Amino acid sequence: MNIIEIIEKKRDKKELTKDEIEYFVKEYTKGTIADYQASALIMAIYINGMNEREATDLSIAMAYSGDVLDLSELGNDIVDKHSTGGVGDKISIILLPIIASLEIPVAKMSGRGLGFTGGTVDKMESIPGYRTNISIDEFIENVQKVGISMIGQTLNLAPADKKLYALRDAISCVDSIPLIASSIMSKKIASGANKIVLDVTVGKGAFMKTQDNAQKLAELMIKIGNLAGKEVVCVFTKMDEPLGKAVGNSLEVIEAINFLKGFMSKDIKDVVLEIGAYMIKLAGKGEDLSKNKDMIIENIINGKAYEKLVQMVKNQGGDISYINDINKFEKAKYIIPVESKTSGIIKEINAEDVGKLACLLGAGRLKKEDEIDNTAGIILNKKIGDYVEEKEVLAYIHTNKPEIIEYAKNKILEIWKF
Amino acid sequence: MNIIEIIEKKRDKKELTKDEIEYFVKEYTKGTIADYQASALIMAIYINGMNEREATDLSIAMAYSGDVLDLSELGNDIVDKHSTGGVGDKISIILLPIIASLEIPVAKMSGRGLGFTGGTVDKMESIPGYRTNISIDEFIENVQKVGISMIGQTLNLAPADKKLYALRDAISCVDSIPLIASSIMSKKIASGANKIVLDVTVGKGAFMKTQDNAQKLAELMIKIGNLAGKEVVCVFTKMDEPLGKAVGNSLEVIEAINFLKGFMSKDIKDVVLEIGAYMIKLAGKGEDLSKNKDMIIENIINGKAYEKLVQMVKNQGGDISYINDINKFEKAKYIIPVESKTSGIIKEINAEDVGKLACLLGAGRLKKEDEIDNTAGIILNKKIGDYVEEKEVLAYIHTNKPEIIEYAKNKILEIWKF
Repeated sequence: MNIIEIIEKKRDKKELTKDEIEYFVKEYTKGTIADYQASALIMAIYINGMNEREATDLSIAMAYSGDVLDLSELGNDIVDKHSTGGVGDKISIILLPIIASLEIPVAKMSGRGLGFTGGTVDKMESIPGYRTNISIDEFIENVQKVGISMIGQTLNLAPADKKLYALRDAISCVDSIPLIASSIMSKKIASGANKIVLDVTVGKGAFMKTQDNAQKLAELMIKIGNLAGKEVVCVFTKMDEPLGKAVGNSLEVIEAINFLKGFMSKDIKDVVLEIGAYMIKLAGKGEDLSKNKDMIIENIINGKAYEKLVQMVKNQGGDISYINDINKFEKAKYIIPVESKTSGIIKEINAEDVGKLACLLGAGRLKKEDEIDNTAGIILNKKIGDYVEEKEVLAYIHTNKPEIIEYAKNKILEIWKF
Repeated sequence: MNIIEIIEKKRDKKELTKDEIEYFVKEYTKGTIADYQASALIMAIYINGMNEREATDLSIAMAYSGDVLDLSELGNDIVDKHSTGGVGDKISIILLPIIASLEIPVAKMSGRGLGFTGGTVDKMESIPGYRTNISIDEFIENVQKVGISMIGQTLNLAPADKKLYALRDAISCVDSIPLIASSIMSKKIASGANKIVLDVTVGKGAFMKTQDNAQKLAELMIKIGNLAGKEVVCVFTKMDEPLGKAVGNSLEVIEAINFLKGFMSKDIKDVVLEIGAYMIKLAGKGEDLSKNKDMIIENIINGKAYEKLVQMVKNQGGDISYINDINKFEKAKYIIPVESKTSGIIKEINAEDVGKLACLLGAGRLKKEDEIDNTAGIILNKKIGDYVEEKEVLAYIHTNKPEIIEYAKNKILEIWKF
């Protein structure tokens, strides 16, 4: 077997065997296959596609290119959730304590933000003292002790996917359905859960711009999951404007805490209920989705979900006085209201544009090694469908960089479309 | 402009602009575009194609990535010839002295062999003393003095093509019609001639296995030539079995000398007449192809073509006693006849297989830095259509490597198919 023959087959739109895919992933991870050869193969896959069997073999091969987490100590019904990416997405921070409060164990490894979307780990780290970088033993112990742990990717999870993702980014081969599906599923397989709810975001702020493509991605991920012995459910959520009102790390944590204190905004609630109902079902704790939703609301209202968050944060070294009093969170030096120049109904707020602007304000990384400013971000005071009077505040800019305030103000006036 | 956008366009089957193609060729030659990005673009071109305009812009950009030879001192009717590659192809060594003997100036830069096909420069160097590596000034002086000069590529001709060709080889993207056409035409444009006869070989020993593909390649090269201001004619010649009887450097030179001495084998004569007739026509020395062919035969029979070869070799330091007496050429230590095990009519002798075997015997390079054994090669005693009795000699192996004689004998018995 050699890489030239493998490239040739995919170039000619032929199906690759399991052995060929495994050989490619293994040798590319080791570095014996050159980037320029991987690059030719990836472009051929981008253009000529992959069937379900190939995408499954690619997912499994990438998962086994590094460590694969063993969660069997925690039982057979470990349910994971994953979102295909969005702006203002604080669902995990809200939903996972709810799930844990329903006595379903939660062992969640999350990623960091890159590009215009934020990462759950970065957000959690804006709680002073909260440790995301703990050992796997401690991680499992924490789940056994308080029923939940949320950490960063401490293991060497799917290194082949990391290497291929960086390459895809450099050759404009990111938005391929089989490649996105394999990338997500490789990490899910490596993360050890055997039941997974996938939140497939659709819209202007998502990778999938159309329902049709989102449907294809979802179907493929379900097939890959099933072929890899996992139970997978996909839910579709809209990602045109950002989710909720906050974009930025501590701003989103504050919004999540407030939600669990009972201040539920409708768009976040819809997503929490939808994904949560399926997680409860997969965990075997309730067949009826509508009843599952009631269970979620109940545990928010009775404070059990909030208590679970407090327990988890405390257990992992976080300062819970910040959770109890959100005013303790450090604020950005400049909090600037942006007033509307006109009146009317907001027709569009492109989530991707908001995410990019939040990055510029300090909330995100452009490169992996960049430092994040936890306090930076944007509060959306008006959202799509809202009627706005002239001089009403559209949004608040939170930043420590005075030099870009003017630029950001103008940008917000551009992004909020009437 | 950036390479990501260029890759993206071709990935999506869009047409690249002249500026984009020039940018890619320039930056890739400089090394500011990475191999893995060029590789993705080349694969996208391989799969999604290029139109005539794009292929022309690619040819011109690659031609101007290095030196472009100026032959204007020699007049406006410099005619070049080029073959798309074959085994046993000694046409240039025979035909160019004929053309020069008809008072058409010949300024020919040839390449070295790589892979299973031989190169004219390597062949010429088997004449002791003959200098292929002379300055451009001397090259032009020689043409002015004796009407002909054949040399190697002393200039930095189309370096972008060299770099891209090596990459294409490593990612299985060699046999793409727009890429082959651009590669050939870039070198022809850089070589300075404004009239070109292209010998497009078709068959099992050629890049183009079918007449249909050969036709497409020819049409594209003609279009590129015309768009680049060159007059181009294509002739098609068969390349199933090797051309003539000799494969290997000095063996082919001997066959060429013998041909000019009047010992003309039919298959070589057909190709010489076909290409030669068009060269004469392009040079403005004869409109009627059939009369042109007569002129060629006449100058072989009256010895003028042979005299021109002697003049050229002498003028470039070659020992003409070898031309006058071919027995002076050094012989391989082992000359082994291979006898047929059976009787019947030969149906197939795959030229590519013969070329590869000749390389193994010492006649060619597997890598650029390999040394060539001028004496090594194969003499075809029987060719396709010949009736052979059991124990008659099919071919003679010429080699200095005793260890591979047994292998080579068996290989010949395999290649000569009844």
